[in-house]
Amino acid sequence: MNTLPAGSIIGILGGGQLGRMIAMAAARLGFRCHIYCSDPNEPALQVSAFHTVAAFDDEEALTRFAKSVSVVTLEWENVPLAAIDTIAAHVAVYPGASVLRVAQDRGLEKRFAREAGIGTAEFKLIHSLQELETTLETFPLPAILKSTRMGYDGKGQAKIQSRNDAAAAWRDMGSDEGILEAFVPFEREVSVIVARSQDGAVVAYPVCENVHRNHILAETTVPAAIDNKTSQEAIGIASRLATQLHVVGLLAVEMFVLKEPNEKGQRVLMNEIAPRPHNSGHWTIDACSCSQYEMLVRAVCGLPLGNTTPHSKSQMINILGEDLGKCQGYVADPNACLHLYGKSEARTGRKMGHVTILKGSWSEC
Amino acid sequence: MNTLPAGSIIGILGGGQLGRMIAMAAARLGFRCHIYCSDPNEPALQVSAFHTVAAFDDEEALTRFAKSVSVVTLEWENVPLAAIDTIAAHVAVYPGASVLRVAQDRGLEKRFAREAGIGTAEFKLIHSLQELETTLETFPLPAILKSTRMGYDGKGQAKIQSRNDAAAAWRDMGSDEGILEAFVPFEREVSVIVARSQDGAVVAYPVCENVHRNHILAETTVPAAIDNKTSQEAIGIASRLATQLHVVGLLAVEMFVLKEPNEKGQRVLMNEIAPRPHNSGHWTIDACSCSQYEMLVRAVCGLPLGNTTPHSKSQMINILGEDLGKCQGYVADPNACLHLYGKSEARTGRKMGHVTILKGSWSEC
Repeated sequence: MNTLPAGSIIGILGGGQLGRMIAMAAARLGFRCHIYCSDPNEPALQVSAFHTVAAFDDEEALTRFAKSVSVVTLEWENVPLAAIDTIAAHVAVYPGASVLRVAQDRGLEKRFAREAGIGTAEFKLIHSLQELETTLETFPLPAILKSTRMGYDGKGQAKIQSRNDAAAAWRDMGSDEGILEAFVPFEREVSVIVARSQDGAVVAYPVCENVHRNHILAETTVPAAIDNKTSQEAIGIASRLATQLHVVGLLAVEMFVLKEPNEKGQRVLMNEIAPRPHNSGHWTIDACSCSQYEMLVRAVCGLPLGNTTPHSKSQMINILGEDLGKCQGYVADPNACLHLYGKSEARTGRKMGHVTILKGSWSEC
Repeated sequence: MNTLPAGSIIGILGGGQLGRMIAMAAARLGFRCHIYCSDPNEPALQVSAFHTVAAFDDEEALTRFAKSVSVVTLEWENVPLAAIDTIAAHVAVYPGASVLRVAQDRGLEKRFAREAGIGTAEFKLIHSLQELETTLETFPLPAILKSTRMGYDGKGQAKIQSRNDAAAAWRDMGSDEGILEAFVPFEREVSVIVARSQDGAVVAYPVCENVHRNHILAETTVPAAIDNKTSQEAIGIASRLATQLHVVGLLAVEMFVLKEPNEKGQRVLMNEIAPRPHNSGHWTIDACSCSQYEMLVRAVCGLPLGNTTPHSKSQMINILGEDLGKCQGYVADPNACLHLYGKSEARTGRKMGHVTILKGSWSEC
């Protein structure tokens, strides 16, 4: 492994809250950060030594950035692959273009999982309204039509209850390629965050149990209320994906837990992946000796991976624009660790911060 | 209390590792920081949104700084009082000049403690070699001659074993005012970090047990191996000092624990105070839901004080320039939380970082 000495400069693509928390973890280990983002008001700039504010198609700025740092990572898997190629000509980028190519496309993502023997919802790629209508003649309903690219927090998604919804769904999805997914009758939603080092070692944090509201993560509870066998199945899926994708850094895998195993004996189905720190891993900052952010820094800088066993049980609650009034209560709660992201404009549904409530010693689990 | 909204700018006087850790805690709560320091290479600048690099007697720079922030705190109690006065004409400074005046002077510090009924080593102020020689005719030996001002980590100190050492000690102390202190036959060294809010509430972290090497803090273990009565005595001293000094922010009090109570029934004697985050409180970052740094931010921003009960037992070990080779071991230790300060030049005795080793659940204490 190529171990970077303390003081090295880590380049981070993207300046949102994930980039901000990567930068703070990097600083803890003595690294300096250079943020590349397109908006001078991004929150990561407030805690970083260096920054470039430029578009992701500005080859000159990308090249200058690449030459000024010792390694590059990212907080956003939809960085254009052309930008990654430009940077990778000068410096290592983790995770690399081959990982991002899969993670940027819901279709490739699901095909990759299926080829690895991992269960997913039934799905079909759709390229026109006509193809959608034909497919719906036999596809199980309800279903969800999602854009294959650039979707997050429910954006680019439309629910289909009946065949009559086809035209509206195709329009709402707003893309020329979609993926039609059968609704999964899940018992609970979980996620697993794994880290993989440059030499292929893989470690996993415990399974997180997630509750979404309006397609946005609302709460994460750790440990998840699932049995050990299901937990091992979920961790196995995430670890296998990280290894087979050759991720260096983090892979967050969102999954559905079924009420009963399906005909293939699978109780856990993959929903989607993100090769970066994940909202459902924020709790690791307060409940682990090594957070997901520090873990990413360790992986990309060639340091040994850290400890994934928490010291405390915890619950993470997202704070959206409309939730800011709750901060007064959180700041007065002795078990709450409040994190605000330094965003000036609070909009409904915008992630403004989160709080981790510590729930007692992990050793009692 | 004047509660500052998230996004407000906190001014920090001093750009060393304490300022750096204040800035990171402030960022966690959504505040932005403006560092005022005299050296552009100071580590806090790497993690702060704004900075002023100027001398502490640059009135114009101080005024501009004061007008650009919503509140000011400090990482260094020896900020010239004239600078504090200049700033305080525009914005609140916590802790204020009246606290710093005492904390900047070992003589005033000890007199303040004595007047509050708190025990200290026997001491006498010394203004000349002749006064030192006369005093030593009756003063118990061994003793230590310390400069009353600007000393830290053993700088400005000289040990006196016999009366023959007087001239060398006066020269080594290097100041025109010294304090001669009797050596205290202590059983252990401890410290207590208390926080006091704008409305006078006081909270205390558990007693820390400290080991110094070459006058520099080497290790802190929490909890200290002392009985409950001694612990309450130490916490009482720190709380009383914070209240009587009207500190807003933090007060760290270093103390000696005697083998037996003295003739006044005191088993704990005050050694020195610092009205700022303290090296012996670094462990709070990793072992508490609210670190000493976040606690300071809460106090100066008018938020309720945080929880001081740790979730984990811990040991903090300082990493000096000559200890950097140990980092490889720390980074591989699953219970170790490594912190490096981003200082480029590693000198012998220079504090380059620290590590907190988590030692199991606090509930087992």
